[in-house]
Amino acid sequence: MINFTPGPSQLYFTVENHVRQAFRDGVPSLSHRSKEFEKISKTTTDGLKELLGIPADFHIFFTGSATEIWERVIQNLVEEQSLHFVNGAFSKRFHEIAGQLGKENIKIEAPLGHGFIDFKTEPTELIALTHNETSTGVSLSMDFINQFRDQHPDSLIIVDAVSSLPYPQFDFTKIDSLFFSVQKGFGLPAGLGVWIVNDRCITKAELLLSKGISIGSYHNLPTLLANAKKNQTPETPNTLSIYLLGKVVEDFLRRGIQQIRKETEYKATLLYQALSQHKLIDPFVIDPKVRSQTVIVAQTGVHTESIINHLQSHGFYPGEGYGEKKKEQVRFANFPTHSKETFEHLVDLLEKLS
Amino acid sequence: MINFTPGPSQLYFTVENHVRQAFRDGVPSLSHRSKEFEKISKTTTDGLKELLGIPADFHIFFTGSATEIWERVIQNLVEEQSLHFVNGAFSKRFHEIAGQLGKENIKIEAPLGHGFIDFKTEPTELIALTHNETSTGVSLSMDFINQFRDQHPDSLIIVDAVSSLPYPQFDFTKIDSLFFSVQKGFGLPAGLGVWIVNDRCITKAELLLSKGISIGSYHNLPTLLANAKKNQTPETPNTLSIYLLGKVVEDFLRRGIQQIRKETEYKATLLYQALSQHKLIDPFVIDPKVRSQTVIVAQTGVHTESIINHLQSHGFYPGEGYGEKKKEQVRFANFPTHSKETFEHLVDLLEKLS
Repeated sequence: MINFTPGPSQLYFTVENHVRQAFRDGVPSLSHRSKEFEKISKTTTDGLKELLGIPADFHIFFTGSATEIWERVIQNLVEEQSLHFVNGAFSKRFHEIAGQLGKENIKIEAPLGHGFIDFKTEPTELIALTHNETSTGVSLSMDFINQFRDQHPDSLIIVDAVSSLPYPQFDFTKIDSLFFSVQKGFGLPAGLGVWIVNDRCITKAELLLSKGISIGSYHNLPTLLANAKKNQTPETPNTLSIYLLGKVVEDFLRRGIQQIRKETEYKATLLYQALSQHKLIDPFVIDPKVRSQTVIVAQTGVHTESIINHLQSHGFYPGEGYGEKKKEQVRFANFPTHSKETFEHLVDLLEKLS
Repeated sequence: MINFTPGPSQLYFTVENHVRQAFRDGVPSLSHRSKEFEKISKTTTDGLKELLGIPADFHIFFTGSATEIWERVIQNLVEEQSLHFVNGAFSKRFHEIAGQLGKENIKIEAPLGHGFIDFKTEPTELIALTHNETSTGVSLSMDFINQFRDQHPDSLIIVDAVSSLPYPQFDFTKIDSLFFSVQKGFGLPAGLGVWIVNDRCITKAELLLSKGISIGSYHNLPTLLANAKKNQTPETPNTLSIYLLGKVVEDFLRRGIQQIRKETEYKATLLYQALSQHKLIDPFVIDPKVRSQTVIVAQTGVHTESIINHLQSHGFYPGEGYGEKKKEQVRFANFPTHSKETFEHLVDLLEKLS
């Protein structure tokens, strides 16, 4: 069977072998204060820097989940106010968390399935962008993301790329922080978030601290940084997951990030074309400029159940629509683990339903 | 080789097989909103309730680490002041976290290697007890822990049992919360904390919330409870680890908790006896009443390096002394994964050094 849910998703095909090797090498019993752990941690962060083109003035930290990072972003980087672009369940949750932490949380909204047009932004401390809204399959373009740096040079620009990385190529001169979790594009078991921040973020957290504002304890940015400088973590981390992420990143580097990007676009084009030409199904996102390449949402309406049954009978398990769209949509993850052949087969299966 | 470090420690011997089964059953790709996940989560929490004798009015929540639980305890349960019993690095860290979160953090201190005597406690919101101080091998007796309920009926009594569970038998009528992480006594890869709380804790968190005090977001107690009632978690959790914990708990239940307790005491007695009779080594903790049964610390002084080398040459890897004690102590975990035969062998090896 092949799992197309947008996360946890199909494991990357090398993961099980890497787990076996990890057990042979005693990785799960390693002390997180040992040289062996530091080596694993460094391999993973160095690999990520190469794969994603992360500049030297950015740091990479490990957390329990991307959900945790939403909270840590607000806790460490916002004194009074953050601005959130909300167009689905996940960007909405990020916005809510700012409120739960007692911050003034402004939002700019777009309808489900759409990008943002006709908005005006006032100066603010932090701009929260969800690159890929997993619930609806809408992606922000790089031009959209990159516009804010010049407009608001003093704002920290934070990008949630949970369900798009490693595909997108970000311009790190235009953003201050990027984060993801490993159970989506990286094809790993869940239980690890990866938080990438620059020195502007560290400085901001230190500023809040100097004003007597609590920025949390073991996972505040200065503590994360002090430990990361030694290739360590403040707490006993999910060492196995950090190891596996390093191994999958090595696999991705061998395959080549350009190759992964090209294949992602090929597979997305193939599926969007099939959905557009289909008699019973439409792409949910109308505007091709904001269509996600990594989470493709099909408007299946009254045919939802029969389409899911048809695909499952061939071992293809699509994701359900999110929340209120559960009964009328299906979602297809298009991650590096999903091969071109798998997508060609998927499209064939959908066409048989026409 | 056998790992005696107090955590991450030697894996429980069944873990690798459980991992294989998990991959065969697709556990790492399961949605945390699926019925299959709910079943796994329920198996694990039901098993823990049976193993540890947890009453029905307690709830079990999953976090990223026990370090996270230190922070969540303070964030959710303390408005102004907490009281901490500090006698080592880990109880000290719990106390510090309360300060980092802006609370008045009172402490009662004992010297390293000792229990608490001659202290007086004033009424306070929360009493933080570290049942087993992993850094020094000092345990609090059950009488010690159980004295506070009558003295301070309004205080929440919180017990860190990170490096002692599943061995100790707590009286849940005398405490309000208990927590641990899985990489110690449960013999699992790190990356999961388990937080057990009663309804008094939930009520206190709700009280703080009603006063407009931030208790965090996705991992505040009301949110954890709302999800746990559905056997779910607020975020995508470390599903594999929740599954493995359930499996190891089943293994423990088959072996029998009384059997595990008896064997733990037998092994501890054996090792403390050997240390007491040894010419070059002493038990670090002098008072037998506060000696940990699960983390046994040896004062090895100038012989530290040669003792470690001797043991390692036979495939026995003790833990180093903690912090400032690194060069003069070694620590031996005595967890369910360490067999009686292993401890008998360890004692033989130590005796050869006399």
